[in-house]
Amino acid sequence: MFEALPGFREFYPEDFSRRLGLFDSWRRSLEICGFSEYDAGVLEPLDLYKEKSGEEIVEQLFHFVDKGDRKVALRPEMTPTLARMIGAKANALRRPVKWFNIGDHFRYERMQKGRTRCFTQLNVDILGDAGVTADVEAIYSLILVCKRLGLTGEQFVIRLSDRDIWLLALETANIQEDLRPQVLGVIDKVERMSDEQSIEALEKLISGRSKELFDVIQSMFAVESLDGLKSWFDGRENVADEIRERIASRLEEWRDLWEQLNKLGCGEFLKLDFTIVRGLAYYTGFVFEAFEKGRRARALAGGGRYDHLIEKLGGPDFPAVGWAMGDVTMTDCLDHHGLLPSHETPIRVFAVMEDESRETAMKIVAKLRESGVSMVYSHKKAGFGKQLKEATQWNCQYALVMGSSEMAIGKVLVRNLEDRSEESIGINYLVQHFKKLGLAV
Amino acid sequence: MFEALPGFREFYPEDFSRRLGLFDSWRRSLEICGFSEYDAGVLEPLDLYKEKSGEEIVEQLFHFVDKGDRKVALRPEMTPTLARMIGAKANALRRPVKWFNIGDHFRYERMQKGRTRCFTQLNVDILGDAGVTADVEAIYSLILVCKRLGLTGEQFVIRLSDRDIWLLALETANIQEDLRPQVLGVIDKVERMSDEQSIEALEKLISGRSKELFDVIQSMFAVESLDGLKSWFDGRENVADEIRERIASRLEEWRDLWEQLNKLGCGEFLKLDFTIVRGLAYYTGFVFEAFEKGRRARALAGGGRYDHLIEKLGGPDFPAVGWAMGDVTMTDCLDHHGLLPSHETPIRVFAVMEDESRETAMKIVAKLRESGVSMVYSHKKAGFGKQLKEATQWNCQYALVMGSSEMAIGKVLVRNLEDRSEESIGINYLVQHFKKLGLAV
Repeated sequence: MFEALPGFREFYPEDFSRRLGLFDSWRRSLEICGFSEYDAGVLEPLDLYKEKSGEEIVEQLFHFVDKGDRKVALRPEMTPTLARMIGAKANALRRPVKWFNIGDHFRYERMQKGRTRCFTQLNVDILGDAGVTADVEAIYSLILVCKRLGLTGEQFVIRLSDRDIWLLALETANIQEDLRPQVLGVIDKVERMSDEQSIEALEKLISGRSKELFDVIQSMFAVESLDGLKSWFDGRENVADEIRERIASRLEEWRDLWEQLNKLGCGEFLKLDFTIVRGLAYYTGFVFEAFEKGRRARALAGGGRYDHLIEKLGGPDFPAVGWAMGDVTMTDCLDHHGLLPSHETPIRVFAVMEDESRETAMKIVAKLRESGVSMVYSHKKAGFGKQLKEATQWNCQYALVMGSSEMAIGKVLVRNLEDRSEESIGINYLVQHFKKLGLAV
Repeated sequence: MFEALPGFREFYPEDFSRRLGLFDSWRRSLEICGFSEYDAGVLEPLDLYKEKSGEEIVEQLFHFVDKGDRKVALRPEMTPTLARMIGAKANALRRPVKWFNIGDHFRYERMQKGRTRCFTQLNVDILGDAGVTADVEAIYSLILVCKRLGLTGEQFVIRLSDRDIWLLALETANIQEDLRPQVLGVIDKVERMSDEQSIEALEKLISGRSKELFDVIQSMFAVESLDGLKSWFDGRENVADEIRERIASRLEEWRDLWEQLNKLGCGEFLKLDFTIVRGLAYYTGFVFEAFEKGRRARALAGGGRYDHLIEKLGGPDFPAVGWAMGDVTMTDCLDHHGLLPSHETPIRVFAVMEDESRETAMKIVAKLRESGVSMVYSHKKAGFGKQLKEATQWNCQYALVMGSSEMAIGKVLVRNLEDRSEESIGINYLVQHFKKLGLAV
């Protein structure tokens, strides 16, 4: 007997129902925020990913040469595909573009607990709008997705940070421009390294000043409020007026973002946290992550502004902000809190029939199904008791008992299998009755 | 700028909405018939397909060796995966198992119109039930799927045939047992070949008797009713009693199938058609195809009984009947008839706000969104006229006009952008009002 490949999951109906329940919830939350769904194939030209992430990404990909001699890869992320689609229709698209995708992604990673080689990711992006309101909508939509899944401020937090602020902070520390992105790369890892390791990594970049810079970084990590952020910059010495102006302007945008999000009722979920840098070099402004509180503070989602990526990938100049959420961590988090949703399927009705009136009974089954009632029935001839037992095995909430003598006078019994109550209903009123019960969908 | 790979489709929101609309319809129809959804990864061990279809299938696959030195393939069909999943839990599963899957499949085919290398297929299977009622449910569910998509008996037909009947027919023609499957392979292609080609192909199998057999085949092709089928067998000469008994028993099952389907209201969609053989050797009994009428008589779906396949693939003895429907042909057919469904998204409401009362307006937006109302608003500060214009660009059906003076007395205007009617609503009654309009989902 064959097995599924390592890192690839199988979804039996019970698991699939929860999987689809999560997707249903994601989909509805994003639709509520005015986003539209899109998709593309999971197989793409390999070069699409090299362009964005360089040669090293290839190590993590499922890639091969197809029969037409094309280098292809199973998509590891959605953004390059999005960039291509936006680029191809840039002029025809109403701005801002608010799109989302729920799709499979693939990475060949070393197997460990909670890691899969195929995962489903929700990608949410707002494109063509450089203003703060787009960042607000992006962050708000992330919070709404979490809230509608039943998560509260006790269970998750959005950590907000800003690569622009970090670049300005490094500027006040006299780190030369071309080194700043690399320093950000180190800052991204500081919390996972010992202080000695961090200082060593910084020393490689700015020989002789690593200890000083490490202190600067630590003091930024301690910032917890907008006022604190302002004080931090105010406390920096020997900062040119031109830089002060840019700092003031950026702090103004922060205030705007913060106020808009508070108006939308997001205050309780937000936390300033400059330990968040987002490793990827293409982020350009606000960056944020949704974290699970307590247990292990794992990232449930992450994102930020990436104003130049679409252009870099060959598209038009299209400022953008977006975020992504994976199904594996989120499912685990919801499971832990007893919040796993299920796909809403119609309630099943079991048709119990007698052999002598099977013909009429089958006609009724067909009529109800066409009205949207979910009906099952025994494939074998059996007595009422056995059929009712099968109804329970099918998890039916109702049984439609069609006895010959009752059918002869135009009636059937609708039995509620949970509270065992029973109603005699005229055959001609059955559809109406099931509609009233909310069973005809 | 990169392009998508040949044969791989991109779905912009408008296309995606129709795609998801089709899936929604498929899903709901199958749920109504009591089927449960399952899924698995699109990447599978290559051997899984060789086992069922032999080496030749490899030619049509996207396959490669992964970084762990495993031979893998993008799934070309669902049945082997289904067999594995059933096999792994055979004892725990309630019989009959009624499952469906909506998933991507991949074949490296020569590019031509209407062909894609990645297509989505609906797979529907009933397993663990060898009786005619399972065939009835399978065929009925196929018809219900078509009907709920809006197709009528004018537009599609189910052509019913039977490999068992064909094998019996060949037995009465004294074709030896081991040659019969190969003869069926030729019969499957007769309609696409000239008579000469068919006879030539038969001659290779049964030297000297090809013309005689070709006449037998043609006479079976002419059978159009159950009575006709009975007459056909009655007319065969020199048939042993033992064979006659098996024929009678099979005709009895046909009568049962036919009657049950008629009781379910399927009569108008059914046609006996022994030109249908289904090329694949693993089919064992009733086989059927849904055909588009008129235009080009293309197969919209196909299936049949395959009682030994699960066991052959390493699973338990699990009789099965199932069918599959692809998204490409079905979408084209529905498009032709103006029947393409759309995914039902919530109706969007555009929030029109004044700068001086933006704070309160944003709070209202957030409150409505949390109640399930789909809300969008202008990311830029603009006058009412400009905002209402943007509302139209977003295809909003309603605008929520939040003027400062009205808000001061606790009111807002709900404007229907289609009929331009307008209602003044108390802010505290907005959620209730939108619920009444069916906008809060």
